[in-house]
Amino acid sequence: MKPIHVGLLGLGTVGGGALTVLRRNRAEIARRAGREIVVKHAVVRSLEKAQKHAGDGLTITNDPLDVVDNPDIDIVVELIGGLDPAKELVLAAIENGKHVVTANKALVALHGNEIFAAAQKRGVMVAFEAAVAGGIPIIKALREGLTANRIEWIAGIINGTSNFILTEMRDKGAGFDAVLGEAQRLGYAEADPTFDVEGIDAAHKLTIMSAIGFGIPMQFDKAYTEGIGALTREDIRYAEELGYRIKLLGITRRTANGIELRVHPTLIPARRLIANVDGVMNAILVKGDAVGATLYYGAGAGAEPTASAVVADLVDVTRMHTADPGNRVPHLAFQPDALSSEPILPMSEVRTAYYLRLKAFDKPGVLADVTRILADLDISIDAMIQKEPQAAEEQVDVIMLTHVTLEKHIDAAIRRIEALSSVSGAVTRIRLEELNSH
Amino acid sequence: MKPIHVGLLGLGTVGGGALTVLRRNRAEIARRAGREIVVKHAVVRSLEKAQKHAGDGLTITNDPLDVVDNPDIDIVVELIGGLDPAKELVLAAIENGKHVVTANKALVALHGNEIFAAAQKRGVMVAFEAAVAGGIPIIKALREGLTANRIEWIAGIINGTSNFILTEMRDKGAGFDAVLGEAQRLGYAEADPTFDVEGIDAAHKLTIMSAIGFGIPMQFDKAYTEGIGALTREDIRYAEELGYRIKLLGITRRTANGIELRVHPTLIPARRLIANVDGVMNAILVKGDAVGATLYYGAGAGAEPTASAVVADLVDVTRMHTADPGNRVPHLAFQPDALSSEPILPMSEVRTAYYLRLKAFDKPGVLADVTRILADLDISIDAMIQKEPQAAEEQVDVIMLTHVTLEKHIDAAIRRIEALSSVSGAVTRIRLEELNSH
Repeated sequence: MKPIHVGLLGLGTVGGGALTVLRRNRAEIARRAGREIVVKHAVVRSLEKAQKHAGDGLTITNDPLDVVDNPDIDIVVELIGGLDPAKELVLAAIENGKHVVTANKALVALHGNEIFAAAQKRGVMVAFEAAVAGGIPIIKALREGLTANRIEWIAGIINGTSNFILTEMRDKGAGFDAVLGEAQRLGYAEADPTFDVEGIDAAHKLTIMSAIGFGIPMQFDKAYTEGIGALTREDIRYAEELGYRIKLLGITRRTANGIELRVHPTLIPARRLIANVDGVMNAILVKGDAVGATLYYGAGAGAEPTASAVVADLVDVTRMHTADPGNRVPHLAFQPDALSSEPILPMSEVRTAYYLRLKAFDKPGVLADVTRILADLDISIDAMIQKEPQAAEEQVDVIMLTHVTLEKHIDAAIRRIEALSSVSGAVTRIRLEELNSH
Repeated sequence: MKPIHVGLLGLGTVGGGALTVLRRNRAEIARRAGREIVVKHAVVRSLEKAQKHAGDGLTITNDPLDVVDNPDIDIVVELIGGLDPAKELVLAAIENGKHVVTANKALVALHGNEIFAAAQKRGVMVAFEAAVAGGIPIIKALREGLTANRIEWIAGIINGTSNFILTEMRDKGAGFDAVLGEAQRLGYAEADPTFDVEGIDAAHKLTIMSAIGFGIPMQFDKAYTEGIGALTREDIRYAEELGYRIKLLGITRRTANGIELRVHPTLIPARRLIANVDGVMNAILVKGDAVGATLYYGAGAGAEPTASAVVADLVDVTRMHTADPGNRVPHLAFQPDALSSEPILPMSEVRTAYYLRLKAFDKPGVLADVTRILADLDISIDAMIQKEPQAAEEQVDVIMLTHVTLEKHIDAAIRRIEALSSVSGAVTRIRLEELNSH
């Protein structure tokens, strides 16, 4: 059979990785796909830097339209990242009747609805396995592997940089700033780490998983994000004492009132498998009503792991491109006319448990005041530790774990606790999830 | 669109589960599949017991041909288990142009080659996600999610009964027989536990994963199986002391000389995620050359987890049944004319590391004799413990971990060690795998 012709937009880390994998495993991939998958054309910014990839009949130029408008290209792979000009180029490729593979999570999370509608209209496929959790085939698992289930919740460690930082903070007892510097030296964090440590990158990925899991449109603008920059060594240590680990989790959950969509540092029981996912690795826990909890673990970034997902999409498109478009796997797992309008819950309406830490003057009545405030708001306490005062300090750390309650109730409680004259400074609040599989 | 009509052969645990899930999640599944999936006919042994499933226009009879020859049925789901009459019925359904979904691992591992050839010829699909690791979508991950990769090895905890027994033996310090009895009372082990504890069930599943991972025919007859019945509390405890857990692993690995295909108790480093998969849960670690190691975890058995996989297959077949057969995902991941004839290695040619335990008389020279034998066979020692002699005993336990070597060399070493007059009884030998992801 005639080979499938691929055009790459971008030949950086992931693009170079995809080319390397397609060349190295050409025979193995052709044995699976039923035909060869050949990169015919790549578009790059610097022709000079791209010379190392030359050969095998590959044309390298620097005008994206050389690929997007190229009648000899069957599948366009968008790996330039960002929204502009990625969005425009993807829409142009679709308009030209080309299938698209992309690793661009921001593009899918922010403009997926428009892009999938255009692809649907034109009868082409847009595949995006590489946009979430690198080489872990989580999009496929959600979209095809778990179709029997009503998905109840998804919780994932989906940002390797943050997980590396949290792992190092715990292992070495180091502070956030020191570990961030180390991560930057090792190449695990970018010079401007905002997207990773503030939870924005994780929120892009979570938005995509939420849409596919629950059959709703992409709604990145409604995702709540809170980063790891404010976490202290003390909180990580106290969490350990209580049997928990702190991870940056993306959590999306279906409730009777709407869908939760939130990224924030989270205490999870240390004995859970996902609590033991360390360093730059990713893992996603999915709870379905029939299957129970399943977990998917692997490298969430890097040249070849991400290329693994890009090439798997190329094989999928190759296998499916002759199929009747109406019978292909729908972009968002659910048929486009069957998406639901369930609302995304505002954070104040989210229900979860909490870790609270406050500094109190070591005198009678403080705990009575605090527990009274919590009781008045119907918040039950699950555990409490009061630390011995440090040598020269007048204040003691008080740590409490609460049972599940509404976020707006905890917010009200924190305001009242902070107003107590016996309490000094702000209350630290970190959410806590048991991630029970039943 | 017109509904897809399903006929069930068998309405026991898994069949009942599939019916329950299809009914409960009917709307959710139709939103995904693009049409309703309706069970029209079920064939059972006891009409009386099946009455609880009646309703929704379901016909229940007890002649399998009522489903297999039924022109109104699009997909036949085989859930009766065993080889006879399952094989004959599956082949008859294929001959009648019906797609088949099966959860029957023995059938696929022993007769898959013949069944897939028949399906290929007739242009129908045979799907079998439920045959391996229950609800974990591992077949889909191997066959579609990791197509970019040259798979290097697969290692899985794929028998929940054995994993439950090993977990209990470790947690409670109990012996095999006591724990097996408990597992039988809890319904985790059958009255005749041979298939589970002897590794045969795991070998069926491993055979299937090996075929899909490496693009080779099913070769169950060449799988090596060793069960967990001979494991002692002492070995589990010594392994822990050395930083390892003992798990019943199915391992298949591609080497320069052929493919390893083996099920046996295995020491794995306690810090590996898969070493922490406890109780009846399953997990599979897959090493690909591009993606690195990925892990898939979930319930490997039970009514609804297994039904989750059966129904996912039904949705897949529904989505793909109008596609050109030549472009569907191939049964064994690789195109049928592109399977490889790489040989399965005999166990004597397998390379792995070993845990050895022997009882030696506590006198000078014993260790010198043992280490000399190992050195003569080019086997290096990685760690050694000699335990203090017990009160009334003349012998001491000596435990050694070796580096990787050929199985035939360790066999020769054990024969010579057992012949030493200073060594009493048989040498215990358990294989050891580091499962490094690089």
